[in-house]
Amino acid sequence: MSKDHRKGTVSELGETGLLKLLSERLPVPAGGEVWGGDDTAVLERPDGRLLVTVDTLVEGFDFDLSYASGSDVGWKALAANASDIAAMCGRPAQAVTSLALPRSTPLAFVDDFITGLIAAADHWGIALVGGDISEAPTLVVSITLLGAAGDPVTLRSGAVTGDAVYVTGSLGGAAAGLVLLGSRSDRDDPAADRLRARQLRPEPRLEAALWLAGFEPTAMIDLSDGLAVDLSRLLDSSDRGCHIEEELIPIDPDVASVSGLDPLTAAVTGGEDFELLFTVDGERELPATSPGGIAITKIGQVTDSGTRTIGTRDLGALKEKGWDHLR
Amino acid sequence: MSKDHRKGTVSELGETGLLKLLSERLPVPAGGEVWGGDDTAVLERPDGRLLVTVDTLVEGFDFDLSYASGSDVGWKALAANASDIAAMCGRPAQAVTSLALPRSTPLAFVDDFITGLIAAADHWGIALVGGDISEAPTLVVSITLLGAAGDPVTLRSGAVTGDAVYVTGSLGGAAAGLVLLGSRSDRDDPAADRLRARQLRPEPRLEAALWLAGFEPTAMIDLSDGLAVDLSRLLDSSDRGCHIEEELIPIDPDVASVSGLDPLTAAVTGGEDFELLFTVDGERELPATSPGGIAITKIGQVTDSGTRTIGTRDLGALKEKGWDHLR
Repeated sequence: MSKDHRKGTVSELGETGLLKLLSERLPVPAGGEVWGGDDTAVLERPDGRLLVTVDTLVEGFDFDLSYASGSDVGWKALAANASDIAAMCGRPAQAVTSLALPRSTPLAFVDDFITGLIAAADHWGIALVGGDISEAPTLVVSITLLGAAGDPVTLRSGAVTGDAVYVTGSLGGAAAGLVLLGSRSDRDDPAADRLRARQLRPEPRLEAALWLAGFEPTAMIDLSDGLAVDLSRLLDSSDRGCHIEEELIPIDPDVASVSGLDPLTAAVTGGEDFELLFTVDGERELPATSPGGIAITKIGQVTDSGTRTIGTRDLGALKEKGWDHLR
Repeated sequence: MSKDHRKGTVSELGETGLLKLLSERLPVPAGGEVWGGDDTAVLERPDGRLLVTVDTLVEGFDFDLSYASGSDVGWKALAANASDIAAMCGRPAQAVTSLALPRSTPLAFVDDFITGLIAAADHWGIALVGGDISEAPTLVVSITLLGAAGDPVTLRSGAVTGDAVYVTGSLGGAAAGLVLLGSRSDRDDPAADRLRARQLRPEPRLEAALWLAGFEPTAMIDLSDGLAVDLSRLLDSSDRGCHIEEELIPIDPDVASVSGLDPLTAAVTGGEDFELLFTVDGERELPATSPGGIAITKIGQVTDSGTRTIGTRDLGALKEKGWDHLR
């Protein structure tokens, strides 16, 4: 961090800028390890590559207890981590949980939280191997997840010019669910319930990722902060540009049912869909769906690093509308 | 968690009670793994046992930025984790850091924090392999540390009747340092500086632990929450009692220089000394100091589970004065 960057506050840099500055302070690993700048760390061990990732959810910023239950928070905290393991085409294995909470927290809430955490762990075959409890003015859940890497691991940095850009599933649903929840919508139709579930009970693409590994993706990232932000991260790591066909982006079909939300905007700038964004050699043909029924959609190409566009729009400008924590 | 325990709030149980209730909800590992109830989790891998521990520091509860610098916080967050690895006679290896902070946080603070974290990591040979950043109303630092276990690992549960109880170093210094810092004492003598450093820049007993492993300790725990609390935890895990000789407890000699603090009380109920408490076969004779110059002091014996005393006092009553988060 240069002397200039000691002035001002965190809000001036945002999450992406702060991570970049911190990474400049930290040592770079030797050999095949990855210590930062990807979805997980990759550690070399005699018996294989170990993936390590941490993700933290903070009440009032990452969830709202006026509509999320303790069980929802427990599920989502583990889901967000599992999605990072998926983005490395890895298998999640063990988790440790740090729970910081006010002493006024109802025990019923803690009981619900652990119910949701256990349900998610069982669902993805993750062992909950420990944790700690602290006091805090507001609820903070931090989970560290260990996993086993495939060989090779799928980093963000491997995309080359001419690769095709793909995405799993559909986009914008979690953002639409957030609008319904935040506005206390009284809709109780199946589409509304499904959108709320996308926000509260995300399903990371673990099975699809293991299947996709067979197609040798050149780069992969999970969509936690929105297509525009996460695509930019992948392209930054690969030092490339892109052209995305606006009309090819698979928008969650139920998003259109939510008034006051432009579906394409939700799909491009909405966060927390926990789909996978990846690149493969442009000559390859991928099936339209995974064996588990997840749509696999080609949305564009990787280009030289000059320009990045979605349709006629500049990715950099769209990115500013995406979710950057701390800005 | 039984239905009865769904009533009320976290404060009625405290940290120890809440951890106990949560552990009843979680599955128990097969084989030689440890998933909870000790200083770290122990995971079996083909290439050896992996230790995993997480520790979280929360502004206003675990540190106070009116006297702790960002660098102090970074150091102590890693030290608290390293001490847990020491208590398993293990070697720390890699850490991931989750930093949740207000957007108004000065960049200079973040820069100082990372300076302290890097200094601690270099000091103990730990690789900082990644992390994440979140927004929160107050600063929360959560570190997960991986380590390599010795064989066998030193759990809390192995103490048997007739074992001798030992402690490393001296006790009460961190509590005395907290009094000086909290009262904004203007003392600038070497004793005061050393006590403040014990609170702000703890030195976990990693080297001493590796040397102690050669004496086959039957049980070990680090002193993070005070002798009374942590001794009770070790004895609970081992299902034993104890008799501790009050006059054998090695009180930090500088504690007596701090007015308004009873040295024995500080030594028995003060937290964060990050010394090691351990038991060995009663027939063994241990050297009075480690090769690194750390005092090794026998303070009592393990007994059948009926009674637990320090001098003429009951350990259970003293424990209530120790530091139990959330009560």
